[in-house]
Amino acid sequence: MTARSRHSGAYAQAGVNIDAAQQTKERIKKLAASTFGPGVLSEIGLFGGLFEVKGFQEPVLVSSVDGVGTKLKLAAALDKYDTIGMDLVHHCVNDILTLGAQPLFFLDYIAMGHLHPEKVEGLVRGLALACRLAGCSLVGGETAEMPGIYRGNDFDLVGFIIGVVSKGEIITGRKIVSGDVLLGLPSSGLHTNGYSLARRAFGLNRKDAASRLNQFYPELGRTLGEELLEPHRCYYPMLKPVLPLVKGLAHITGGGLLDNLPRILPESLAAKIDKNSWSVPPIYDMIQKKAKVAEEEMYRVFNMGVGMVVVASPQNGEELLSKLSGAWRLGQMVQGDKRVILV
Amino acid sequence: MTARSRHSGAYAQAGVNIDAAQQTKERIKKLAASTFGPGVLSEIGLFGGLFEVKGFQEPVLVSSVDGVGTKLKLAAALDKYDTIGMDLVHHCVNDILTLGAQPLFFLDYIAMGHLHPEKVEGLVRGLALACRLAGCSLVGGETAEMPGIYRGNDFDLVGFIIGVVSKGEIITGRKIVSGDVLLGLPSSGLHTNGYSLARRAFGLNRKDAASRLNQFYPELGRTLGEELLEPHRCYYPMLKPVLPLVKGLAHITGGGLLDNLPRILPESLAAKIDKNSWSVPPIYDMIQKKAKVAEEEMYRVFNMGVGMVVVASPQNGEELLSKLSGAWRLGQMVQGDKRVILV
Repeated sequence: MTARSRHSGAYAQAGVNIDAAQQTKERIKKLAASTFGPGVLSEIGLFGGLFEVKGFQEPVLVSSVDGVGTKLKLAAALDKYDTIGMDLVHHCVNDILTLGAQPLFFLDYIAMGHLHPEKVEGLVRGLALACRLAGCSLVGGETAEMPGIYRGNDFDLVGFIIGVVSKGEIITGRKIVSGDVLLGLPSSGLHTNGYSLARRAFGLNRKDAASRLNQFYPELGRTLGEELLEPHRCYYPMLKPVLPLVKGLAHITGGGLLDNLPRILPESLAAKIDKNSWSVPPIYDMIQKKAKVAEEEMYRVFNMGVGMVVVASPQNGEELLSKLSGAWRLGQMVQGDKRVILV
Repeated sequence: MTARSRHSGAYAQAGVNIDAAQQTKERIKKLAASTFGPGVLSEIGLFGGLFEVKGFQEPVLVSSVDGVGTKLKLAAALDKYDTIGMDLVHHCVNDILTLGAQPLFFLDYIAMGHLHPEKVEGLVRGLALACRLAGCSLVGGETAEMPGIYRGNDFDLVGFIIGVVSKGEIITGRKIVSGDVLLGLPSSGLHTNGYSLARRAFGLNRKDAASRLNQFYPELGRTLGEELLEPHRCYYPMLKPVLPLVKGLAHITGGGLLDNLPRILPESLAAKIDKNSWSVPPIYDMIQKKAKVAEEEMYRVFNMGVGMVVVASPQNGEELLSKLSGAWRLGQMVQGDKRVILV
């Protein structure tokens, strides 16, 4: 990891703990090393991570940065940290995947008021697991202890990803034409968006959050906590082999279908989405009723069960439907003004 | 910027503000675009930043992630955000410079309890200014509004940098031998380390922090706030032309000379540092007295006026001394056990 710092003595009196930092470092080292692919040149302890890029024609680097929003608060309430680590990597991998990129390496930033080595280890265990799944090396990170900024169990977790794509294979959405089909890929839940609203809906801002999260809901078939901490799904392994068939990919995160899908659409086209083409999972109906949210807003805040939208020609669409487990025909491209029409 | 999200309606009631997010986005766009070098391919709004790497033999990517620690609190107390943005970029640029890397691009993460567009703009103005100085493109960022985690004026700021170096030109410190000289480059102040201790020393954890920071100190020749918010110095412009003369570079951050210099030393060598070779700036003496810190700990927490250490052969050392403004002979390499000996 790059520059994971440690301090002692008078510094400890100012609220910064040397032993915790050292312990944390040891726990993280092995987990990070377990993700190293052949591109990694550096040893932990240098001032920067070294990664050699080989075998790409006109390599273009694709980068993204993300957090996991207030899903953090639920992880803290249930003292469960590995899944939130997975969330972060999966979110980042999906973001750069929309441009056709293969993930290369990842760096994390973890900040807490006081370092808890076991919490950091839990987070990094999740990061490392998800990195291995995506063939991505966890080359660096920073663990910051900031007593004046983070209070109690609060923390923050940020991820940075770098991937690569050959210049000729970048997926831009520019080739999308009227008549192209839209396929939906199921999400595994809320992924990492809409948690401020979901927390309000279920009263999870209160002190009894843990007991509320441990409540079993028959309509969910599991506890609320299991539903809400379900990790963000990673679409890279399933989409990687079929990228040549794809014209556009939209990762449905904050802003939902309504704001994310337009990001890849040409100016003169709109996406007509058939709301009856899939069953919106029960958690969204529960949130909508409890927090009294208008339907359109639901589609702007949550993914509503659609984690990724794939745009393809009608012919390639058929092939993709047969190859992508769980995919369905979500709608099609029509003349319009770069927006989503829900019908 | 990648995925700067926005929300409305019931979401706003849960504490997330759409208009502020939209305003923030507009302010940031132009600043970021002002940094774009020829490698940048992406337009703002895509799910990832695109950067083409050209013209390097066996390119190796060098990455680092960092925050600015509790220097944040001082920026918030004085409502001054641009310098802390510069701090972050300079810190990251210096980190990867130690491996010989030229900065390519940068991504930021800004998190606040409630988005203040003018604060975010201040931060990004500083990031953009520092990026331009280092020839680095600000290709992406995430602005997160997390009401349950950040309170009042608290915020966090994280930066992620990617640079490149040809494989044959990586600076590793492995060629350092006994008799090589160590040069010091002056820091501009505390840079971004030791602020929890400095804040304690000057009572800056209290509500009257702003008035304490506005106090003029004759020994500093300026106010305490001016001294403590002085931006981290960027060594890239001055070191870039002389990198072929250099065997090792250590960026003196958290851990001070005592912990950072050993990171680049071969196993069987030690660095003998002559404490009388430079005048430690007065701010350190003030902190040491006020917080009653042992001398060794001062050298482990603060840079003590040495922002970067350059290791070179005696001959190249002479050339470097003549070319690097402000550099001085700090010490030399001797047989030892990979540590710093202060004499």
